[in-house]
Amino acid sequence: MRFSQFLTPTLREVPSEAEIPSHRLMLRAGLMRKVAGGIYAYLPAGYRVLRKIMDIVREEMDAAGAQELMMPILQPAQLWHDSGRWSDYGDEMFRLEDRHGREFCLGPTHEEIITALVGNDVRSYRQLPVTLYQMQNKYRDEIRPRFGVMRGREFIMKDAYSFDKDHAGLELNYQRMYQAYERIFARCGLDTRAVLADPGAIGGNDTHEFMVLAESGEAEIVYCDTCAYAANVEKASTRPVTSVEAAPESARPEEVPTPNVRTIEELSAFLNVSPERMIKTLVYVADGEPVVALLRGDRELNEVKWTRLLGCSQLAPATPEVVSQVTGAPVGFAGPVGLQGVRILADYEVAAIEDAVTGANKADTHLVHVWAGRDFQPEEYVDLRSAVAGDRCPECEGTLLAARGIEVGQVFKLGTKYSKALGAGFLDEDGVERPFIMGCYGIGVTRTMAAVIEQHHDQDGIIWPASIAPFHVDIVVIDPKDSAQAEAAESLYRSLWAVGIETILDDRPERPGVKFKDADLIGFPLRLVVGPKSLAEGKVEVRVRATQENVLVDLSDAVSFVDDRLGTA
Amino acid sequence: MRFSQFLTPTLREVPSEAEIPSHRLMLRAGLMRKVAGGIYAYLPAGYRVLRKIMDIVREEMDAAGAQELMMPILQPAQLWHDSGRWSDYGDEMFRLEDRHGREFCLGPTHEEIITALVGNDVRSYRQLPVTLYQMQNKYRDEIRPRFGVMRGREFIMKDAYSFDKDHAGLELNYQRMYQAYERIFARCGLDTRAVLADPGAIGGNDTHEFMVLAESGEAEIVYCDTCAYAANVEKASTRPVTSVEAAPESARPEEVPTPNVRTIEELSAFLNVSPERMIKTLVYVADGEPVVALLRGDRELNEVKWTRLLGCSQLAPATPEVVSQVTGAPVGFAGPVGLQGVRILADYEVAAIEDAVTGANKADTHLVHVWAGRDFQPEEYVDLRSAVAGDRCPECEGTLLAARGIEVGQVFKLGTKYSKALGAGFLDEDGVERPFIMGCYGIGVTRTMAAVIEQHHDQDGIIWPASIAPFHVDIVVIDPKDSAQAEAAESLYRSLWAVGIETILDDRPERPGVKFKDADLIGFPLRLVVGPKSLAEGKVEVRVRATQENVLVDLSDAVSFVDDRLGTA
Repeated sequence: MRFSQFLTPTLREVPSEAEIPSHRLMLRAGLMRKVAGGIYAYLPAGYRVLRKIMDIVREEMDAAGAQELMMPILQPAQLWHDSGRWSDYGDEMFRLEDRHGREFCLGPTHEEIITALVGNDVRSYRQLPVTLYQMQNKYRDEIRPRFGVMRGREFIMKDAYSFDKDHAGLELNYQRMYQAYERIFARCGLDTRAVLADPGAIGGNDTHEFMVLAESGEAEIVYCDTCAYAANVEKASTRPVTSVEAAPESARPEEVPTPNVRTIEELSAFLNVSPERMIKTLVYVADGEPVVALLRGDRELNEVKWTRLLGCSQLAPATPEVVSQVTGAPVGFAGPVGLQGVRILADYEVAAIEDAVTGANKADTHLVHVWAGRDFQPEEYVDLRSAVAGDRCPECEGTLLAARGIEVGQVFKLGTKYSKALGAGFLDEDGVERPFIMGCYGIGVTRTMAAVIEQHHDQDGIIWPASIAPFHVDIVVIDPKDSAQAEAAESLYRSLWAVGIETILDDRPERPGVKFKDADLIGFPLRLVVGPKSLAEGKVEVRVRATQENVLVDLSDAVSFVDDRLGTA
Repeated sequence: MRFSQFLTPTLREVPSEAEIPSHRLMLRAGLMRKVAGGIYAYLPAGYRVLRKIMDIVREEMDAAGAQELMMPILQPAQLWHDSGRWSDYGDEMFRLEDRHGREFCLGPTHEEIITALVGNDVRSYRQLPVTLYQMQNKYRDEIRPRFGVMRGREFIMKDAYSFDKDHAGLELNYQRMYQAYERIFARCGLDTRAVLADPGAIGGNDTHEFMVLAESGEAEIVYCDTCAYAANVEKASTRPVTSVEAAPESARPEEVPTPNVRTIEELSAFLNVSPERMIKTLVYVADGEPVVALLRGDRELNEVKWTRLLGCSQLAPATPEVVSQVTGAPVGFAGPVGLQGVRILADYEVAAIEDAVTGANKADTHLVHVWAGRDFQPEEYVDLRSAVAGDRCPECEGTLLAARGIEVGQVFKLGTKYSKALGAGFLDEDGVERPFIMGCYGIGVTRTMAAVIEQHHDQDGIIWPASIAPFHVDIVVIDPKDSAQAEAAESLYRSLWAVGIETILDDRPERPGVKFKDADLIGFPLRLVVGPKSLAEGKVEVRVRATQENVLVDLSDAVSFVDDRLGTA
């Protein structure tokens, strides 16, 4: 490919809407253009990268025994009504009607379709297991699309679905996919970490998210400094407190007036007591019933854990009216002492707060000298808060560290959620009808591309791993009008292609500086410069994008040198 | 791949809705399943074929200098308003709104998006020419989807767009694409014919359709028995009549009563005159003005030619009220003699009708002994009818033959239709702003798959060309429990894959007859049967699907024999 013919319009200016490096660089390097909010066109260089990622995904999926198929993007509503997700999905689903007024959606995912498909055509345990995957556009009508393709409305996903006759089979498929994901992301040059996560609305039990650690990531994760434990903060367990100081006999709870002091911060300043010594008392309504959570004053309630623990389907903070019904006081003065007629659950840490401060269930009043166990007794001590850096690891004696991550893949054990809802099953060895045991496995292909840029860039542009670079080598001719230079460049170009090294020849009538800047911005792994000085010595200058190393190589050795460097890049 | 693990559910029954061979066979061979009307899921065997077609398309597009990109399926309405096609497209366009109430469509084509994209990023003649293509789902809300993927609502298209600075460049790109199309279809095993066609709503001038001749085709074409001329009947030219008999002095027009005789057929029976001697007089309204077309009684008016000739944007047959205003008579009795105050255009053949019969512009009355030129004079003799078999070729002395065709590709010269409408242009050598000269080029990928089946099947199933077969070879083991047979089959299987021959091993616990039937139905080019008798002689039976030939081959020669046969298949 000649640069002069290749549509890769680089930009010197940074489009103002781009907030993170990958978004800025994908626009500046001419990899994509915005068509509407969260909707992009991928230009040739960008699509070359996407195709290489998809080829890697395909190879690893095939190697793991999965079969590629292609399901429709346009999905009839009926199956979604059957699974109950037509209403669950809410405003994030793009919906439309055909000319006959029949309802459709643009697939955000394909559990319904694949379950119906396999349910119709697989009837016997002898046809199991089967794992199917596809790569196609998915649709999600994000209320605020942002960060370029990180949170887009139209994006490319690889979605795979496994069907097994039993849980042992699912476990095997889950492990196979997990390992395939590790290979896929490694081949794309990504440093990922598989973290435990909450399955959320998709259903099922176990799930791991594959996270690319990056400052711009939207997910918060914690990981152990000693063992392999890693989890989304929503999911990360905290440890029970093991040693608790016994409450003294003296210093019983005592009211102190705290006029208009409602928040932890205000109270801390007013009483000169640190938040770690306070008991935060939060009133929620779960499926219509009030319920109280107690936490240490400096901790955040984790609503995912809270919902799962209560096993409720609707959960929200109580209104001021309900708070005052439950506590007899306005918002800001709730406390566990003397609180009756309501379930009270306390985070593990509450048991260990010595000489605590909490609300008195009375306007403008708090209690001091409060001890859990002596002055109040929660129904249970449980894991209610989000894990934070510095926590002890739940699986070893290590300490948790915090990081931000970009979720590029996720593996789920769905179990029978969809097969039961849609009546999809098979006859087992005994001729008994059973629902499929399913798993599902996603990779955000466009997001993977952006994540690679987040991990591989510098102030000058992108630094592609050779495995997914749009071209491996960029040949820059200092003066294309000089026939010796032009011929040497042409000859190199043909020799490199002859051994399968994807090369672009920058033949544009531009100054060398412009070409160098574009080469760095687009991020070709190697740049070969054919200039008068080096050529006079029969040499070509090779620059390694990642290390900024410059090497003068004999023209006759250039191809093998490049081949060697790409293999180890 | 083992057949036991491969999801390719064959059907013995023919689904009742399938009317043509490709639709029946794609369902029966387990290549696809219907999800909704005109919307299909492609199962693994079907998707393997589609991917091979797409790989061929990609190779030939790249070789022709086109660059692959990927534009969104979800397109904002604004660009379509700008081009004027938002309303033109009517009910065939799937439309939807996002959560903010903004209008979108599911792209039926991408002229608007690509023109805007290139218009934003290409500014100079030095960046031209550029040809871009993509392969993706397209959407058309057909009122009656039918014939499987032939006329679907979601289908895979390759669409390419060329941008040139002048018409000479467009001509070059058009020829390049035309030749690439010939190679693509030939490599897919298709016998196609490029025919001249009318560009219709997409705009522009010249266009060729690539037709697969097949009984089930929806398009009618004519082609010369002598030269290369071929055209869609809508487009095919008819020749002017060269020799015309002079009207005699005697036998002037004479009224004959024809009570309630309105149609050509009725009139022919009533007067015992063949339709070839009648002048059919059709009143139309073009952009609000009445206009009359004259044709030989046995011919059909070609509305595409009629519209183009009149240069009008709205054209429809006149209502009975207008007919009676124009002719002074009820519908069924119009004729050219004495007709005034209205444009009258006659088909070439009308000049040569001797002693004609036509309406008298008077209820229940016709005229006999009518001669064009003597008794009426049309404004002009023109090409108004559809060509039919038996017509003289417009380009040589040959005769036209008629056939039905499946349109699998089309190449258009768009000119400046979209670049002008969307203000997309470049600066030429003199610094003058000019609109791009565009071409566009489509291939129906899913339709190509079906067309191959229409041309390559027999009563037992599909006969895939090796280039796009889901697997090249099917190995059938007569008794998988016999370890000698199983081992020989395994060894063959591994040897074939080792040289890149895609092989499926039918290891299912089924009777050989079931396996043979499935092999024929799915249509693998070669079937290798490992059975006790041949194995005892150190041989394997090779069956060639296309020729039904059976050859006994030494096991040690099997791989090279297969390789050889596939190369020439």
